Amino acid sequence: MQMPQALSDAALAAASKEARAIGVPMNVAIMDVGANLKAFLRMDGALLGSLDIALKKARTAALFAMNTEAIGEFCKPGGTSPGLDATNGGLVVFAGGIPLHDAGGIFLGAIGVSGGSVSQDFQVAAAAVEAARSAQTEGETEWQIIPSGGQHPAVLSSEQS
Amino acid sequence: MQMPQALSDAALAAASKEARAIGVPMNVAIMDVGANLKAFLRMDGALLGSLDIALKKARTAALFAMNTEAIGEFCKPGGTSPGLDATNGGLVVFAGGIPLHDAGGIFLGAIGVSGGSVSQDFQVAAAAVEAARSAQTEGETEWQIIPSGGQHPAVLSSEQS
Amino acid sequence: MQMPQALSDAALAAASKEARAIGVPMNVAIMDVGANLKAFLRMDGALLGSLDIALKKARTAALFAMNTEAIGEFCKPGGTSPGLDATNGGLVVFAGGIPLHDAGGIFLGAIGVSGGSVSQDFQVAAAAVEAARSAQTEGETEWQIIPSGGQHPAVLSSEQS
Amino acid sequence: MQMPQALSDAALAAASKEARAIGVPMNVAIMDVGANLKAFLRMDGALLGSLDIALKKARTAALFAMNTEAIGEFCKPGGTSPGLDATNGGLVVFAGGIPLHDAGGIFLGAIGVSGGSVSQDFQVAAAAVEAARSAQTEGETEWQIIPSGGQHPAVLSSEQS
Repeated sequence: MQMPQALSDAALAAASKEARAIGVPMNVAIMDVGANLKAFLRMDGALLGSLDIALKKARTAALFAMNTEAIGEFCKPGGTSPGLDATNGGLVVFAGGIPLHDAGGIFLGAIGVSGGSVSQDFQVAAAAVEAARSAQTEGETEWQIIPSGGQHPAVLSSEQS
Repeated sequence: MQMPQALSDAALAAASKEARAIGVPMNVAIMDVGANLKAFLRMDGALLGSLDIALKKARTAALFAMNTEAIGEFCKPGGTSPGLDATNGGLVVFAGGIPLHDAGGIFLGAIGVSGGSVSQDFQVAAAAVEAARSAQTEGETEWQIIPSGGQHPAVLSSEQS
Repeated sequence: MQMPQALSDAALAAASKEARAIGVPMNVAIMDVGANLKAFLRMDGALLGSLDIALKKARTAALFAMNTEAIGEFCKPGGTSPGLDATNGGLVVFAGGIPLHDAGGIFLGAIGVSGGSVSQDFQVAAAAVEAARSAQTEGETEWQIIPSGGQHPAVLSSEQS
Repeated sequence: MQMPQALSDAALAAASKEARAIGVPMNVAIMDVGANLKAFLRMDGALLGSLDIALKKARTAALFAMNTEAIGEFCKPGGTSPGLDATNGGLVVFAGGIPLHDAGGIFLGAIGVSGGSVSQDFQVAAAAVEAARSAQTEGETEWQIIPSGGQHPAVLSSEQS
């Protein structure tokens, strides 16, 4: 099942709200079950270097359907999988990446947050996860209905970009 | 000058609205003057392969402060700069990437749109450019004021992520 | 705000002078707030392997608006963010990269120095930071005024490279 | 023989002067015979996307000891070496990269210029080449003499960064 925009919108809005509440501008990335980017926002004043970290946290959590810090357990000194964090083009294995589920508990992807302390990043991501679970995603498929008098989507036309 | 979120929000909203109006789901990417990602959205049903195209269109237009198709003129057969499109990690040189300016005409970055035909991509990007020019960006710096009772941003704390 | 060349010139000159004073040839890199290269110099006799280190120090300090060694605190053994140094294409997290500000305290980018001991690298970078703060950057916009009798910049001409 | 800074300084100064004379801000990169960066400058207002092009022009001309447009002859349609431009991490094969020689005709590296039209880029690079040939590089080795009372360069010390 694909992640509906209604869910990523709700997650992004909740993350922004939480970030503003604690006074820390954040980078927020949301990826779907294919670990492909669905939505992203760099809030005003958010650290530029955290852009890549937010993306990699979302990617890590989406790839393993697990919190980023849980992945870190496998590759910490003495762990079962040394170097795991160097796979997949580089994982980020500290807190701030969390899987996203819908109201029915279906795994739909993950969010990654970076810009504050690790605990602040986690707090903002957790707020987004909660919002995603409550997101109203009914009626989303209306989008793909061709409006009366409208043109058929050209997504498969020969002029496709 | 950094691109304020108020501007990228306005551009993204206008692009989404235009995409819905023509019935074609789009990938929309917005980058700042340093060609770093500010905001991104993959609308429901938008082609996955257009994700990278939208990012590269935004990057191309931001890097050269020019429409993507204008860059294409330089590297088309017989153009002055063969292979230009292979620089900068790969440019996209057909329409759908346009520079963004604020109400005062200041260049602040660029938008890249992909998912429909080239002309549809351009149409959606153009609607966003227009909205960006009219965006209300006053008062944006309020964000960085610490809310009363709030915590100081922890970006310099020892717990930095 | 973009970093004016007057500031990078002043920083580079001060770094060179300090390097000569201590008798250690250095690689010196300066990046703007978008972490894009503004200026670079490899002094005669400077270690070739330090070229990449200087670039990465400047990039690291620009991305996080923080000294490179401060970033190192987060990813050292027992730190909050293991593997942070592997993000953003590879950070350098020992001393020698320092943010640059203008006379008004505006953050404009960073300098990275490598070629000597870590303490020497830091010393040279610090001298540059001090010079940047005192740099005379007034009148910089004159550059973009077309000189009388001069040609209009061709950056938007059809012969663009 | 290594490229002395006196030569790269002279080339960079001449390029800047020529760029100002024609009113087009440029990116200027200088590489040595090992195709490693010696000096770089992004003038105020120079196109960000030309940064990579200037670097690749300098690299291309340094790697082949030949003007960049001459390399282009080999890989143009019908040329002897199709795809040559895709080697070495990506060459740039239009004008603006030129080898640098000293007064004695010794090949010491190359300069790459980008930011204007191809002919403007070439003009600025050519001015730098001329200046390099006339550069006063005598006495450069003085740099490596330890100043009386000074410390020995620490470049090989165990604290090397």
